[in-house]
Amino acid sequence: MAARKKTPTRKRREAPEKRPEETRLHIDTRNMYRGAGVDGVATADLDAVAEQLRGAHRALSAGSRGGLEAEYACLNLPQAMAAALPEIGRAAAAIRRHRDVLVLGIGGSSLGARAVYEALRPGAPRAGGPRLHFLENIDPDYVAELVRRLRPEATALICISKSGGTLETVVQYLILRRWLEQSLGPAAARRRQWLITDPAAGWLRALAARAKIAALPVPPKVGGRYSVLSAVGLLPLAVAGDDVAALLRGAAENAARCATDDVRQNPALEIAALHYLLDVRKGRRTLVMMPYANPLRLFADWFCQLWAESLGKRTGAGAPAGTMPVRALGAVDQHSQLQMYLESRPDKMFTFVALARWERDLAIPLAETEKDVFPFLADKKLGDVMDAEFRATRAVITEAGHPNMTVTLDTLNAHAMGQLIDLYQRATIYAGLLYGVNPLDQPAVEKGKLQARRFLENNGRR
Amino acid sequence: MAARKKTPTRKRREAPEKRPEETRLHIDTRNMYRGAGVDGVATADLDAVAEQLRGAHRALSAGSRGGLEAEYACLNLPQAMAAALPEIGRAAAAIRRHRDVLVLGIGGSSLGARAVYEALRPGAPRAGGPRLHFLENIDPDYVAELVRRLRPEATALICISKSGGTLETVVQYLILRRWLEQSLGPAAARRRQWLITDPAAGWLRALAARAKIAALPVPPKVGGRYSVLSAVGLLPLAVAGDDVAALLRGAAENAARCATDDVRQNPALEIAALHYLLDVRKGRRTLVMMPYANPLRLFADWFCQLWAESLGKRTGAGAPAGTMPVRALGAVDQHSQLQMYLESRPDKMFTFVALARWERDLAIPLAETEKDVFPFLADKKLGDVMDAEFRATRAVITEAGHPNMTVTLDTLNAHAMGQLIDLYQRATIYAGLLYGVNPLDQPAVEKGKLQARRFLENNGRR
Repeated sequence: MAARKKTPTRKRREAPEKRPEETRLHIDTRNMYRGAGVDGVATADLDAVAEQLRGAHRALSAGSRGGLEAEYACLNLPQAMAAALPEIGRAAAAIRRHRDVLVLGIGGSSLGARAVYEALRPGAPRAGGPRLHFLENIDPDYVAELVRRLRPEATALICISKSGGTLETVVQYLILRRWLEQSLGPAAARRRQWLITDPAAGWLRALAARAKIAALPVPPKVGGRYSVLSAVGLLPLAVAGDDVAALLRGAAENAARCATDDVRQNPALEIAALHYLLDVRKGRRTLVMMPYANPLRLFADWFCQLWAESLGKRTGAGAPAGTMPVRALGAVDQHSQLQMYLESRPDKMFTFVALARWERDLAIPLAETEKDVFPFLADKKLGDVMDAEFRATRAVITEAGHPNMTVTLDTLNAHAMGQLIDLYQRATIYAGLLYGVNPLDQPAVEKGKLQARRFLENNGRR
Repeated sequence: MAARKKTPTRKRREAPEKRPEETRLHIDTRNMYRGAGVDGVATADLDAVAEQLRGAHRALSAGSRGGLEAEYACLNLPQAMAAALPEIGRAAAAIRRHRDVLVLGIGGSSLGARAVYEALRPGAPRAGGPRLHFLENIDPDYVAELVRRLRPEATALICISKSGGTLETVVQYLILRRWLEQSLGPAAARRRQWLITDPAAGWLRALAARAKIAALPVPPKVGGRYSVLSAVGLLPLAVAGDDVAALLRGAAENAARCATDDVRQNPALEIAALHYLLDVRKGRRTLVMMPYANPLRLFADWFCQLWAESLGKRTGAGAPAGTMPVRALGAVDQHSQLQMYLESRPDKMFTFVALARWERDLAIPLAETEKDVFPFLADKKLGDVMDAEFRATRAVITEAGHPNMTVTLDTLNAHAMGQLIDLYQRATIYAGLLYGVNPLDQPAVEKGKLQARRFLENNGRR
């Protein structure tokens, strides 16, 4: 913003053009198709479901109409939340005055923000701004150690639960609220809390009203795993100092790219169609998501939640649907999982996420005598080795006949992450429509929640 | 040790007894069997393969004879390495004089030590001793950021590669050696290095001899993923100040527990048999390893490498063998994967790892008005909620018919981790023998390694 103010003329002239750091995802699906030994989708198979694909696109388009009231409201967040950015920015500015920020939330209330947060910090946390701690799990030792190390007077709390009553999040909140209150008293403790929850219902919303605690809404039609582009993801990321406007812009641009019902032009529809056909026609029942970059590890986790919880369910006819998403990390898992990928059952398909370049690369220095031992390392950088590893793994997986696709990011920034998020939210909804399941619900999970309460009521330790 | 010296009489009297913190793993396989709605193994199925199981036990026993020269030398490390502990202790003491210790190594050269390191640090790194950094991946941004933050004069390097030529580890080593040399000169740089590699062969071994760099051996018959109880795991853990003797003792005790060929008395043989039968008889092709404790997350990763790389291969007859191991984390993945576990294809089986108690538990404080809203939380602790979540998840998975087993640790200590390690190394070897594959090799991975070198030779960036 500072730079803009200094050069108003230049800014105005450049505004309509693409910012230099903003590029499109490169999506290469060639190895998902039959040919060159790959057990992939025949173009005839794709043509055979053309009407089904158009139907899925129609359903998604119809379900997206109506802004935040739409069935697929999550796809409208890029537009709708742009208007909310000033409010989010004000909350973030207040929270940034603290040294440490605890983000309470589990599953969809945590994974999206964490995935973007890590993606935008290659190597390590950036200097400046508060330290964010995503609690997520309720492991007692972890929570105890955290509060032992932090100072209540320098700590803020962001508590996130769509329903306002998620058991894990509620108990974390109760413990941390008391921890703040004991040191600071109730009033000062309240001023260090921000709640993100349903605008009208639930325990957290009632608490916000009763105790006058700052609260931001999760749009009612946006479920946890689709909520990263709402305040659920945007507030923690704004607190971290990330470019949430670029995140929304990237998502909107991907949405525009996916506006057509032509499967060859709409990458989200193509990804859904190929994975669906590889499952039902080819028995490819496991989807390995394998980024070749440490900072994208949690993106794979976010994707695995989105895909598993949206598609892993019974169809109306009672048949089990969905493929199993599994995360991996290149190059590490070449030394762990690759043997099995290549030779165990041919029931897997792969998505690689690669980077076109590294921010900070390192030359590989060889002593004179070592140039003969490692001639292939002469004048190479560490990024060249990472790149060779990725291309080698993709080559042997392709040679072994396993379908695979690659998404390449020019660089790790908020704009690219926004595109990735919209791409996979959209692909997941299309896939749900193809399977004939509701991609937005999670009926089976409720049983476990009730059961956990029952065990607690029965006072049961083992 | 200090405590012992102060109370010699007491110590001598207590020595033959079990130390108070040393208890046995509790292994509950009941839900792996048919009955009460579970699609499990019939006892008749187990009886039908009784001769095959006895054969696997005979083969493992025969292959374990001969100490470190034995085929399954990894199973003899608990005895063999006890004698090497003084040497490892001396190296560790020298390394501990540094502020930061970089552990270079990928896959089996890293995962075992990392898994135990994390398991023994519930909540956070312990105060005192050096900070350990496990590099593992070659992500350039990560490595660049790390060296930016560290001071060469206060940093030691442990470089681990069984073959002495693992590409990722070699390039990390070359970069970090130069980084040390530039600040300190070659002689001082060498004094900050420790290599762990084959005792006779490979580039690292030759380098150790030529440049007089301290080096510890990996026994030739011990492969990477089975090497955590050799210097590969023991040196970093000793540097971290962990009780490596208790680790070995735990492994030895589990070995003694698994000495019989009676599948109902030998838990490693039973685990192998049940997973094998659930695969070949029941089509349970994915094995979800789900600890309910943050510090065991990397134990699940270690197990997934061991299982995948040992079993995911073709039999002599060319048939694909092995089940796909997938890691999960309770309670987090209830909010991510559980929906799919319960309702998608019934091709999964589950192992839960639970803790009987938490070191530091936290009371859940309720305001008066909240006692009506959350009556089930009255007088509860955070550990009670974690426990209820675990039991609820296990109950709904069992009710849905999915086979599952539970390993419970009384507490997270080195002795328990040693038992877990031996249990799963042994179960994996048994399973390899049941499938008719060699659990020690990884033939398919070599292709990828050659391909990566070829890409580098061809000077190829994309």
